[in-house]
Amino acid sequence: MNKERIYSWLGTRKNPAPSLDMILQPVSSDLRKVEKLLRTWSEATSPVIMHMAGQVISSHGKLIRPGLLLLLAGYLDYRGNKKLQTAATVEAVHMASLIHDDIIDGSPTRRGQKTAVRVFGPGFSLLLGDYFFIKSIKNSLAVSSQKIPLLLAEATEQMIEGEMEELAQSYNFDLTESQYLQIIRKKTAGLFEATCEIACTIGHAPPKEKSVMLAYGLNLGLTFQVVDDLLDLAGNPAETGKDRFSDLREGRVTLPIIVALKNCGSGMRNRLKTALEKVKLKPEEKNFSQLLRLLEESRTLELTYAQAEELAEKARKAALKLKPSVYRQSLIELVDFVLSRKK
Amino acid sequence: MNKERIYSWLGTRKNPAPSLDMILQPVSSDLRKVEKLLRTWSEATSPVIMHMAGQVISSHGKLIRPGLLLLLAGYLDYRGNKKLQTAATVEAVHMASLIHDDIIDGSPTRRGQKTAVRVFGPGFSLLLGDYFFIKSIKNSLAVSSQKIPLLLAEATEQMIEGEMEELAQSYNFDLTESQYLQIIRKKTAGLFEATCEIACTIGHAPPKEKSVMLAYGLNLGLTFQVVDDLLDLAGNPAETGKDRFSDLREGRVTLPIIVALKNCGSGMRNRLKTALEKVKLKPEEKNFSQLLRLLEESRTLELTYAQAEELAEKARKAALKLKPSVYRQSLIELVDFVLSRKK
Repeated sequence: MNKERIYSWLGTRKNPAPSLDMILQPVSSDLRKVEKLLRTWSEATSPVIMHMAGQVISSHGKLIRPGLLLLLAGYLDYRGNKKLQTAATVEAVHMASLIHDDIIDGSPTRRGQKTAVRVFGPGFSLLLGDYFFIKSIKNSLAVSSQKIPLLLAEATEQMIEGEMEELAQSYNFDLTESQYLQIIRKKTAGLFEATCEIACTIGHAPPKEKSVMLAYGLNLGLTFQVVDDLLDLAGNPAETGKDRFSDLREGRVTLPIIVALKNCGSGMRNRLKTALEKVKLKPEEKNFSQLLRLLEESRTLELTYAQAEELAEKARKAALKLKPSVYRQSLIELVDFVLSRKK
Repeated sequence: MNKERIYSWLGTRKNPAPSLDMILQPVSSDLRKVEKLLRTWSEATSPVIMHMAGQVISSHGKLIRPGLLLLLAGYLDYRGNKKLQTAATVEAVHMASLIHDDIIDGSPTRRGQKTAVRVFGPGFSLLLGDYFFIKSIKNSLAVSSQKIPLLLAEATEQMIEGEMEELAQSYNFDLTESQYLQIIRKKTAGLFEATCEIACTIGHAPPKEKSVMLAYGLNLGLTFQVVDDLLDLAGNPAETGKDRFSDLREGRVTLPIIVALKNCGSGMRNRLKTALEKVKLKPEEKNFSQLLRLLEESRTLELTYAQAEELAEKARKAALKLKPSVYRQSLIELVDFVLSRKK
């Protein structure tokens, strides 16, 4: 399967969504304040931290998690200032985990720029990740006495657990779909869910809306990860800002692989396993391409995308249980964005 | 300077102290409970974490920090249960930082055993360190609503800052004593001081006793680090449980180096700088030995030890301001232990 076909396949995905900027427009002024707040995090006493933290913060990401928190706070008509601090906190936890992930994976690029580990080396970036983890919990303690820091610490703990379990399953091509879902629930969806729970906490969501919002966050997070898996195989590095095949290179068995092995006949399964073993032994472009051809033959990308759509549908259905409002509209469109995103 | 002479020099240090077990005897039953509590931390939902955390916890260290917390709690006649949880928490932060330090340094051994990074690899041990950091804050939130988690997060933040500053000063042979002291205050003494402040918080120490205890913790921590620097040069690996010269190997400019460069004439300074550059370029046994000979010629170990003694004296004086009791006696002896420790 040549690159053009892969990229064009991604282009044919249903649900083209508005741009993220448009989706987050109802909270855009708050989101700018969150960015500003994050920049103050780099104003440490130490010049070395100021320099490094500043660089990482300025290469900011999509800000989906803080955006999500602000949309929910908007829906709940929360007018206080806790939303800005907590939104920054959630993003900082995410940043910390990316910095550490890039060390573990040895990733050269992220968001189209060199990763922290490439710029500062493993020692500094390890400590920088630690710094953001601790700083986020510390700052959340300034906002709330116990509930929010606890939610954040629990989500972070889950995230780390998920990553450890994933690492323990490296190159286990017998990983089941349910094991996979358990891992991505912990490593990715948990922080989305916690982001929603934090919004519910500061916004005093009624129990019924809270359970709807948690279901929304969980399924949005799961969708996010499955699409991430697809982008690693079929994304355009010029758009994703990171190298392809990093999952396979690190031995991460993602949903497309599981789907391919599950849905094919024994002949194809043998060919797939042979191709996977080749990739494991020699993670080279040639072997990746061969594997991709087999995945294409077995319609894996489409089948996996269908699963992402099912998860997205659950998130959408949850959002539709909320009262109509501009915020609800954005939540629905956010699902479409996550599903159709190219980066 | 041959090894035997170095070890025997260490043996001639003044203030031979009772064993740590004897010093911590007034709190020994609580300390066993803390160890037991720490073991429950490895009982995670995930088998991979249970296995790894369990192994790290079982290779337990000297437990000086939890011991210190329990001694102060004893002195303050605190009878509640918060002391056990918080003592475990402080030790877990310490453990997390050691796990990450060993990754940064690539240290092969610690406490006479293989380091986590050698046993589990860098990915797992990075995540394991994260896990202990987050778990400690999370558990402290279960004990206290805000004050103790905040003290712990602040001390951890300081520790990470100190380590980053130290890394930024690698191979800077012009590092001043005051820069050095600022670094070790953050990276080592801060957690000792925070341990004391946590004890003061749970034990409701009167302001005067609190300030005495903080001064004690700070100076005990500084002493601890200076002795650590000496042991890295002159300790017996069979006793310290870790390799010699790891500071120099990682470019850490420690107090003995600063003292040597400061107190010698220009001829010796040039010889020292040449020897240091050699060690930097080729961190080999031969070059370490040559540098050690020069340090011996300039009486560096003795001069550095004298500074450790001064810091220890400050800690001792602080302790003497407390009311006489078995706990105070142990605090005084703990200073002697830290000063004369061989591991």
